[in-house]
Amino acid sequence: MRADRPEAPLRKLMGPGPLDVHPRIYSALTSPVIGHLDPAYLKVLDRIGALLRPVFGTQNRVTHATPGTGTSGMEACVANLMEPGDRVLVCVHGYFGDRIRQMAQRQEAEVTLVETEWGRPTDATRVAEALKDGGYKVLTLVHAETSTGVLQPMDEIAELAKAHGTMILLDTVTSLGGIEVNVDEWGVDAGYSCSQKCIGAPSGLAPVTFSDRAVDVAANRKHPVRSWYLDISLLDQYWGPERVYHHTSSSTLNYALLEALLLMEEEGLQNRLARHLKNHEALVAGVEAMGLEMLVAPEHRLPTLNTVRIPEGVDDARVRGYLLETFGLEIGGGLGALKGQVWRVGLMGYSSSAENVLFFLSAMSRALADQGQVMDVEAGLEAAMLVLNA
Amino acid sequence: MRADRPEAPLRKLMGPGPLDVHPRIYSALTSPVIGHLDPAYLKVLDRIGALLRPVFGTQNRVTHATPGTGTSGMEACVANLMEPGDRVLVCVHGYFGDRIRQMAQRQEAEVTLVETEWGRPTDATRVAEALKDGGYKVLTLVHAETSTGVLQPMDEIAELAKAHGTMILLDTVTSLGGIEVNVDEWGVDAGYSCSQKCIGAPSGLAPVTFSDRAVDVAANRKHPVRSWYLDISLLDQYWGPERVYHHTSSSTLNYALLEALLLMEEEGLQNRLARHLKNHEALVAGVEAMGLEMLVAPEHRLPTLNTVRIPEGVDDARVRGYLLETFGLEIGGGLGALKGQVWRVGLMGYSSSAENVLFFLSAMSRALADQGQVMDVEAGLEAAMLVLNA
Repeated sequence: MRADRPEAPLRKLMGPGPLDVHPRIYSALTSPVIGHLDPAYLKVLDRIGALLRPVFGTQNRVTHATPGTGTSGMEACVANLMEPGDRVLVCVHGYFGDRIRQMAQRQEAEVTLVETEWGRPTDATRVAEALKDGGYKVLTLVHAETSTGVLQPMDEIAELAKAHGTMILLDTVTSLGGIEVNVDEWGVDAGYSCSQKCIGAPSGLAPVTFSDRAVDVAANRKHPVRSWYLDISLLDQYWGPERVYHHTSSSTLNYALLEALLLMEEEGLQNRLARHLKNHEALVAGVEAMGLEMLVAPEHRLPTLNTVRIPEGVDDARVRGYLLETFGLEIGGGLGALKGQVWRVGLMGYSSSAENVLFFLSAMSRALADQGQVMDVEAGLEAAMLVLNA
Repeated sequence: MRADRPEAPLRKLMGPGPLDVHPRIYSALTSPVIGHLDPAYLKVLDRIGALLRPVFGTQNRVTHATPGTGTSGMEACVANLMEPGDRVLVCVHGYFGDRIRQMAQRQEAEVTLVETEWGRPTDATRVAEALKDGGYKVLTLVHAETSTGVLQPMDEIAELAKAHGTMILLDTVTSLGGIEVNVDEWGVDAGYSCSQKCIGAPSGLAPVTFSDRAVDVAANRKHPVRSWYLDISLLDQYWGPERVYHHTSSSTLNYALLEALLLMEEEGLQNRLARHLKNHEALVAGVEAMGLEMLVAPEHRLPTLNTVRIPEGVDDARVRGYLLETFGLEIGGGLGALKGQVWRVGLMGYSSSAENVLFFLSAMSRALADQGQVMDVEAGLEAAMLVLNA
């Protein structure tokens, strides 16, 4: 229509998110815009809550999506649970654990850090040691660290927190909908995610869940929640039966989120988790057989986001530029301490497919050949197929 | 596809927002999802900033849209400019002025109120009186009060703030794109709006603009901004040339916002403002000729949102229910102090049309007839047509 309209190119998205979305999501985005208090729309909101609960592994009444990206979910959890002077134990083993630390400090919580080398999970024995000091109101943890590709083992730390009466605040941004999340079993009091990774919708919403204890804590603070926009007591008055106006909920994004959750229900959560795991294993087999290395030890790898070490002498930006320009393929670069060290390859939601595994291996082999690095792509594809056909 | 999918009914939206959107916006919503750091997408973000500046009447470099609804824009402005102990003058003449007060108090600013009866603007002489005390860092004002339908005269108060060196924080939620906004001329330091009213896109983004002075103030605070998600220094590192990752910007919503701004540029801002004014005048002529009354005095009415008094003995909820069920027509009820007192009829963006003026008058006459209140609909339609044909 207009020559001066910026282009909207069709990419193949295999970075840390957003990922490619299912055609039914595009269709849902064109649902007629509708008022945020329309009785028909309120049913959509209720349905989203109902469909999110099993994905979070929870029966929490307050389970919904905050009106913003995943970071709005993080801020909602931190800002509601923490107030000035609260003692909190913040476990940092990557970029997003550190973002939680920054937010906690902006709430003037008294932060104690358990820091771990990026690329490894937080060790339960160190958490046990730290909790001995006692009196921690909240322990924060990242279940799936998007910056490193590490999956955090939960059981031991969950037991420790329970034993100390400490609330758990959990980042499930790169796990929810792709890796099992058990909010109730682990005793998580506040958890958040995003819409654009394993859930499979566009970005703009952050699924969150708050336990009854967390809702009580937020409602009985000494100081009001510093964010009016993300005050869970106000949000609950809109999401819950009172239906008090709080913000103009985006029907566009919520119809898309609903469709993503319906697709998930149709596939079956266990089938979906198994699909994410299988495609991840195929990718890893291919990457390693081709001659590349993974950052993370096998037992701690995320099935959703794969961190591949950049080989010595390879120009990171040139590889990613080549993939984008030649194939329209987006993968992620390293964040923070891992900048220039790793590529982040996402296999999440609709993007977690056998087709994407093979496409990535062959495209990456061409990008490396472009810099004179010859990979054994035949071995890589063969190894990936072995897993896919298993 | 599924019998248990909640419906997505086609409404006619004439409330306080969201409003009906142009078909080209629905098309833009299906732009392929793209990464938040993709070079092609960064051009979209730049273009949005460039197209927003003339609508805000500003050359502010930091002019963009925060990742949330209009309330996220309000919180971004309040949280960045105010810190504990700051003296701020908050003008309240409706629900949204009061929301700013609540947010300012959550920042622990020292709030002085200038309160005005709902349905009237804030009087400049009262602001002059209050400013005499001196030392106010920020004055907050609502340009177009969505709860009352009042347009705030700006010139005198703008002069006063300038004379006192006080920054102006301005709510343009129901004016931006439908009523002239002159951020630079008025010396506004922080302004915000929403995507789903006169801009004409779906909800989910909040256009904002910050003067260089405001950006400096935010960067040189004694205490960090309490919201990490809405810290303008961090947002600016992503929106500006540094392109540092901050949040996963929703390409879906931003392509829609871009399309809305392109439509606005094609129409021409002055033509667009004139269209809003004419349709408003037609609606008012029709409403009054039909036998209903407006809440606000003629010189203070918003051309975008019309507050119509609910006649004695009429059941508010029943009227709105009748309109929704019979015609799929949504209008707004009263908020706060005006609950049950007024209807709020929006003529904004694509919804501001001659067709909607006539449709509203005839539909409302049927809803009132349903309760035995006979309006002179012939006179109403005739009066509206006189204005539309002028």
